[in-house]
Amino acid sequence: MKSSSTRGKRAQPRAALSAGPTSAAPATAARGLSRRGLLGLAGAGVAGIGLGVAGDRAAVAASSGSEAASVSPVYPFYGNHQAGIVTPAQDRLHFAAFDVSAGTTRAQLIELLRDWTVAAASMAAGQDIGEYGAVSGPYDAPPEDTGEAQGLPTAGLTITFGFGPTLFETADGVDRFGIVGRRPADLAPLPHFPGDDLDAGRSDGDLCIQACSNDPQVAVHAIRNLSRIAFGRAALRWSQLGFGRTSSTSTAQATPRNLFGFMDGTSNIKAEEPEVVADQVWVATSDGPAWLAGGSYLVARRIRMTIETWDRSILSEQEAVFGRTKGSGAPLSGGTEFTEPDFVLTGREDRPLIGAAAHVRLAHPTQNKGMKLLRRGYNFVDGNDELGRLEAGLFFISFQRSPAQFTAVQLNLAKHDALNEYIRHVGSALFAAPGGISDGSYVGAALFA
Amino acid sequence: MKSSSTRGKRAQPRAALSAGPTSAAPATAARGLSRRGLLGLAGAGVAGIGLGVAGDRAAVAASSGSEAASVSPVYPFYGNHQAGIVTPAQDRLHFAAFDVSAGTTRAQLIELLRDWTVAAASMAAGQDIGEYGAVSGPYDAPPEDTGEAQGLPTAGLTITFGFGPTLFETADGVDRFGIVGRRPADLAPLPHFPGDDLDAGRSDGDLCIQACSNDPQVAVHAIRNLSRIAFGRAALRWSQLGFGRTSSTSTAQATPRNLFGFMDGTSNIKAEEPEVVADQVWVATSDGPAWLAGGSYLVARRIRMTIETWDRSILSEQEAVFGRTKGSGAPLSGGTEFTEPDFVLTGREDRPLIGAAAHVRLAHPTQNKGMKLLRRGYNFVDGNDELGRLEAGLFFISFQRSPAQFTAVQLNLAKHDALNEYIRHVGSALFAAPGGISDGSYVGAALFA
Repeated sequence: MKSSSTRGKRAQPRAALSAGPTSAAPATAARGLSRRGLLGLAGAGVAGIGLGVAGDRAAVAASSGSEAASVSPVYPFYGNHQAGIVTPAQDRLHFAAFDVSAGTTRAQLIELLRDWTVAAASMAAGQDIGEYGAVSGPYDAPPEDTGEAQGLPTAGLTITFGFGPTLFETADGVDRFGIVGRRPADLAPLPHFPGDDLDAGRSDGDLCIQACSNDPQVAVHAIRNLSRIAFGRAALRWSQLGFGRTSSTSTAQATPRNLFGFMDGTSNIKAEEPEVVADQVWVATSDGPAWLAGGSYLVARRIRMTIETWDRSILSEQEAVFGRTKGSGAPLSGGTEFTEPDFVLTGREDRPLIGAAAHVRLAHPTQNKGMKLLRRGYNFVDGNDELGRLEAGLFFISFQRSPAQFTAVQLNLAKHDALNEYIRHVGSALFAAPGGISDGSYVGAALFA
Repeated sequence: MKSSSTRGKRAQPRAALSAGPTSAAPATAARGLSRRGLLGLAGAGVAGIGLGVAGDRAAVAASSGSEAASVSPVYPFYGNHQAGIVTPAQDRLHFAAFDVSAGTTRAQLIELLRDWTVAAASMAAGQDIGEYGAVSGPYDAPPEDTGEAQGLPTAGLTITFGFGPTLFETADGVDRFGIVGRRPADLAPLPHFPGDDLDAGRSDGDLCIQACSNDPQVAVHAIRNLSRIAFGRAALRWSQLGFGRTSSTSTAQATPRNLFGFMDGTSNIKAEEPEVVADQVWVATSDGPAWLAGGSYLVARRIRMTIETWDRSILSEQEAVFGRTKGSGAPLSGGTEFTEPDFVLTGREDRPLIGAAAHVRLAHPTQNKGMKLLRRGYNFVDGNDELGRLEAGLFFISFQRSPAQFTAVQLNLAKHDALNEYIRHVGSALFAAPGGISDGSYVGAALFA
């Protein structure tokens, strides 16, 4: 066997394939995980991490995906806003909600957020987490990184953190983290919408992490390693994989299709509209609280689609429900996909070409006092139910300056949308995603300042 | 509203992005689904499908995945063997097992297999299913294709069919399909292996379909549409998505990593070894039965990995368990990934460098009388359990000339493999995948001849 003296070279970027909008995020290997974070990796009582020296880290060139080498931007983790919001929507998602473990103190929560920040910055830069990473380091300790992303490029990985309303609640009458008074007034549980059929086990959470990447294995690796770091301090409450993005957040992206076979969200907020983004997505300093300035509210909704019923509806019904053609995605009032819908134009019997209950009408900003959402959802299929129906749907994610934007649009939809016959909201969560993180700081630092 | 006279142009290939080993599979649009298959699409009682005429099908260019345009081979559906076996393993999987519905007759089962064949050939060629596809055809009927693959290239889609042991069983004493006497002797339920903890709801099935593609949405689209066609004749029993391939079936592919962070299956059977493939993968005419010649046996095992426990094991233990280094994947006896392991070479205290219980030793052909498996498995994560542990693992798939190959290797592993401490087999199925399908015929035709 090799002796441990042949091991332990510091972690280097995993692959040299990265190329994209920015060359690389700052190196983070020198800034280590906390002692507690390392114990999380090891399980209580295991020592020895971080003590190894010397040795070569193998250069690995495997790839889990044929696309891996072709499209692998690297997005900066640190900046004025968190990445993964106006970033061009990546193809795959792993989303996780956590509850802080009982007994965790304020100091331990801060330490967790610091550890998460350091690890997330490493992964977003295409590096393993920790000082030695996945495949080197001392033989007598668990590897710091779990290793399944070895050899994979960054594939546009972004990691976005959020804080749920329950993080600000007292536990047994105690202000456990000292932040009860700092909860944003807007960070209240979402109202119950007509038709909601929510599963508590798929809803809410103290903390959330959204990991998006063009390679699903890279997104899974991120959530897994962040969950592992949280060991003893926070535990997974629920999680969701999404295989196909359903929204574009850049004008450079084509509009994809949902599992009803339609393009939806054509009029989504795009990164190329900075005024709209500033007006509709980012929490302004004047909105308060100050610690959330530059952040955004994240709404997640698990929407089950009864695709078998949908698939038996006739084409004219399907198009009437969305208010768009199934082929080109053009509004039924005419034109092409990006033509503004005309909600007044009528056809035979003077009925509007886009019906009163059409999804495109009810979701449109003109029908919602100009309010828009930045949608960032994903298609999912989680096996099938006992009746042989695919457990399929849309994992809806939206970012907005205020939850009131989502609530207004969703109330409109929940009451009137023709689509309601074919969908069921089964999970729901709201989080405040803090503003951008500066190198050397950690996510939510202003909340604890 | 548009009148239906503006609709109904016949389905054309979805996207012109396809390029690969073959230019395209034969056009299949002219060979239609059965009346019953069309009713499956529509639900009982809806008429009108296939009657539409004229109109334009929109040219759609959206893409769900950034990789979609870059790597999109088209593999021929018809041929001497079914595709999806020695085909270079694609990145994503949707696998489904079906049970034939009670009351389905032999003629109806054959009709289902014909319908599946026609639809699978269309999709493998990058076409919608049906005469009119997803977005055209008569307004007063459900679209024939569900549409979420509109605008996506084929992304190397292969669709592989298999028949389970239960398909050959009597129901209430009746030989319902007239094939009880044609069951291959080898197509018997797999034995119970030590440590098996099988869930009946994730095991077995009368029929199976393996859909592999580099775009998960294309694989999901295939299973969904084939399930839909089966309506009333066969129903989904269980299904599984896999996000990352864990095996290479071509020397042109790099060995990917499993969720333990290791390369495994380095010595997998490769398409470039035709003698090995002939010897180990394809059922020979002399093996019998004649209807299965050119086919293969498909074993599927859902293997849950207790990754949290694994992640706390030390690096030397992890490497000892696999018998390989975590970095380069080289056997612990030295060399590089593709160096043949030396099971005799000893280190200190004269102990073998690759331990007696190491996975690489126990799975190696030299330890299994030369028997090999063509492995084609996928990593999966299906959310998390109630304790916050990721529901993660390996969906193992192997193809072999005889199930005895799998049984021998798995018995060896189940008894001795050091990996057993970290895994649990929770699902199991065996299918006979018939030989290749010739254009104009259908999968398993020889069985019913």
